[in-house]
Amino acid sequence: MSQGQFVLGAFIPGTLSGSAWRLPEAPLDTFRSLEHYQYIARKLEAGRFHSLFFNDTLDVKLDLALQRGPNSVRWDPLILAPALAASTRHIGLIATASTTYNEPYNVARKYAALDHLSGGRAGWNLVTSLGGGENFNRQEHVEHDDRYARAEEFYDVVSGLWDSWADDAFIQDKASGTWLDIDKLHVLDHQGEHFQVRGPLNVSRSPQGHPVVAQAGASVAGKRLAARVGELIFTAQHTIEQGRAFYQETKAAAAAFGRGANELKILPGVSPVVGKTLAEAQAKYDRQQELLEPKAFLSSISKFVSLGYDLSELPFDEVVPLPPEHFTTNTHQSRQKLVFDLIRRERPTVRQLFNQLTSGGHRILIGTPESIADDLHAWYEAGAADGFNIMFSGLHSAIDDFVDCVVPELQRRGLFQREYAGTTLRENLGLPYRTNRFF
Amino acid sequence: MSQGQFVLGAFIPGTLSGSAWRLPEAPLDTFRSLEHYQYIARKLEAGRFHSLFFNDTLDVKLDLALQRGPNSVRWDPLILAPALAASTRHIGLIATASTTYNEPYNVARKYAALDHLSGGRAGWNLVTSLGGGENFNRQEHVEHDDRYARAEEFYDVVSGLWDSWADDAFIQDKASGTWLDIDKLHVLDHQGEHFQVRGPLNVSRSPQGHPVVAQAGASVAGKRLAARVGELIFTAQHTIEQGRAFYQETKAAAAAFGRGANELKILPGVSPVVGKTLAEAQAKYDRQQELLEPKAFLSSISKFVSLGYDLSELPFDEVVPLPPEHFTTNTHQSRQKLVFDLIRRERPTVRQLFNQLTSGGHRILIGTPESIADDLHAWYEAGAADGFNIMFSGLHSAIDDFVDCVVPELQRRGLFQREYAGTTLRENLGLPYRTNRFF
Ligand SMILES: Cc1cc2nc3c(=O)[nH]c(=O)nc-3n(C[C@H](O)[C@H](O)[C@H](O)COP(=O)(O)O)c2cc1C
Ligand SMILES: Cc1cc2nc3c(=O)[nH]c(=O)nc-3n(C[C@H](O)[C@H](O)[C@H](O)COP(=O)(O)O)c2cc1C
Repeated sequence: MSQGQFVLGAFIPGTLSGSAWRLPEAPLDTFRSLEHYQYIARKLEAGRFHSLFFNDTLDVKLDLALQRGPNSVRWDPLILAPALAASTRHIGLIATASTTYNEPYNVARKYAALDHLSGGRAGWNLVTSLGGGENFNRQEHVEHDDRYARAEEFYDVVSGLWDSWADDAFIQDKASGTWLDIDKLHVLDHQGEHFQVRGPLNVSRSPQGHPVVAQAGASVAGKRLAARVGELIFTAQHTIEQGRAFYQETKAAAAAFGRGANELKILPGVSPVVGKTLAEAQAKYDRQQELLEPKAFLSSISKFVSLGYDLSELPFDEVVPLPPEHFTTNTHQSRQKLVFDLIRRERPTVRQLFNQLTSGGHRILIGTPESIADDLHAWYEAGAADGFNIMFSGLHSAIDDFVDCVVPELQRRGLFQREYAGTTLRENLGLPYRTNRFF
Repeated sequence: MSQGQFVLGAFIPGTLSGSAWRLPEAPLDTFRSLEHYQYIARKLEAGRFHSLFFNDTLDVKLDLALQRGPNSVRWDPLILAPALAASTRHIGLIATASTTYNEPYNVARKYAALDHLSGGRAGWNLVTSLGGGENFNRQEHVEHDDRYARAEEFYDVVSGLWDSWADDAFIQDKASGTWLDIDKLHVLDHQGEHFQVRGPLNVSRSPQGHPVVAQAGASVAGKRLAARVGELIFTAQHTIEQGRAFYQETKAAAAAFGRGANELKILPGVSPVVGKTLAEAQAKYDRQQELLEPKAFLSSISKFVSLGYDLSELPFDEVVPLPPEHFTTNTHQSRQKLVFDLIRRERPTVRQLFNQLTSGGHRILIGTPESIADDLHAWYEAGAADGFNIMFSGLHSAIDDFVDCVVPELQRRGLFQREYAGTTLRENLGLPYRTNRFF
């Protein structure tokens, strides 16, 4: 069985994802409305969610899917998160930022400031990005392993800068006029391959010591980084067995870096569709699937994972051909592997594959509050998860369903918290405070 | 006489500046407290200030002044501004961001998002920065004219990205499933000397079209940039004659770029100290001056403007020696010129210079609500200002004094607004909407 408390994080896409925006009850313009996000953050906080997570990309893919939904248009999470920090009191706010197209000094500073102003509720989803080179002085996206090499060093600089000041550096003695103790300041002086950063950071140490670091890399290099520095590990396993294997492998890999099992939480993503009855849930799901444009979706996913052929050109009920023997993509290795494996293992028809993939590769849970709670409970009991990253489309009614129906069911079982355990995100998650390595 | 409405902007430093933190009534820890800033923003909004402005630096100067006050430790304005946007309804929020140590795609996106979530209240103080190279892979700060060359192109990329989408690009037709009209998208494809950026921006066009651009450069290159792209011009003139000359020069320079006089507002900075009587105001001022540490201040300003000798080593009542003949500094050319000119013109003692410079070179206005209103009124009438950038230390009582006493006096004279004129910052300032150049 998994140890520590059962964690619930929420994943909210840039704006209503998939076909959700086409539903009659979906408001227009959610991508220009702070109120939309405030509603979500406050509702999830009422449901005692530990955290709210915003993914991010740095480009607009000029493909067929662009016209079909708000996939690539979204606010910068580091602008949205502070606004939501001022609109909530307890929920953690995890914003994605790229190590490939940012400077570590800027990133260290922004998260430290977010941690301050939220009272210790900041998290950083550290990504190497799925694209964007063409917007940052490059012909192409930086190559996969170079991205991770840079990310490793980037993290070292950022976390070193977070330790620029002892917690008690700022004595602020009015009588003598001494604002800070100069001996409680560490000049990082990082001289590395990718970065030369002197420091110190121009923000004091923040309430959590370090903001919580989330990581979702799943390639060899990605898993290594996650094991070394990730505190929340987002993943996308489909069966309890796969989940347990990943869980054990990841905690063991972290242990090899000298980290305790309680220093990282493994959160598989699940997409819930909640109904009073299974039939009602299934009807809700079908309604959304019918509004999806299979052709646009299948064509862009074919490209995304470098399938080598275009799924959208195949008849809907034909069995999907086998993918190429070897994995070769510069963007999304783990998603490619997931799709290739799925095709090899299940030999699905195009329609079946379509249905599986429309949640972005995450497990879709269609059911009643009881059946969904059963499922999450079983994964947790089996040691396949420390909790879950609940993937929402952004539709308010679906979030309401989960908070109003599934959360109480989880609480009734004594599985999920009725109150926040502490003040900071770290305390709420049961992650240890990050002490300063220099003081 | 100046045209258009009388503008009041507020300048709030990273945290309590100068010696304000040493006053008995100053709370500790303002540099870690969102409530501190929320109080200020809401008070200024109650006083109908047009905007609230946050300056920024990207390094910690390891000098004597560091111990003496919170000069270089501050949150990133682009993290603070969204939190304040969620905490206010009318006031404009102007955040500083560097063109030297950022990427234009990131900057364009962050301000567009801030403009969205604030309902059109975002401004960008475009600076080339006073330092920071050592935190961004460099031995030294980028050279002055190179910074401005980069800034010119940076602005072109950012403003081009802001025009990525027609205002009506996002049709969101639920029936057909068409989210956007692909013909209403402009791919920038910028290929320049410093930047190659394809676009489009992954944020839709924001309420103001473009966030308002503020600029305070005062070197030859700085003034050129301000004349071409600045909409709020921060400056630091000391006499009405200087103010008028700068005003006319700047509006003429803008006209040479094809811009109308109403397309930019010139706002000299003033530091007010308000009392019921002049004596009370003077006493407030003296109290703060006494708490300053002259040695630390004089030593760091000597370095800052490359004076060539150390003011802190001279007797306090000695006349300051003449500065070097030629200006040579890579950081702050206009401030250097201001200090050198002041020394040459007024031949002050060290003490007199100290008193003049402790407001960072801005004019200090010690007086009653009436005398301060008289002064501001006279500048406005004389065509030396479109309004003012009121420099506060961050001390709440000083902001209260201004809002509760000076603002009503300005309103009584019919000079200053009793209500906001519109919804967006641009509307409130009387600046024209920025139409999309591509649609
Ligand atoms: C729940 C979840 C959220 C993710 N969010 C982002 C994101 O916001 N931005 C991004 O570029 N990648 C995101 N990713 C992708 C991963 O960070 C990573 O880039 C991807 O798994 C490819 O990494 P790999 O090459 O190590 O497999 C996410 C992945 C998962 C499972
Ligand atoms: C009111 C005011 C605010 C300023 N704020 C900033 C700031 O936040 N960050 C910064 O680097 N420079 C700031 N400056 C400095 C100018 O942007 C500019 O860098 C400086 O005047 C030197 O430019 P120059 O070399 O063109 O003279 C400010 C100047 C004034 C007058």
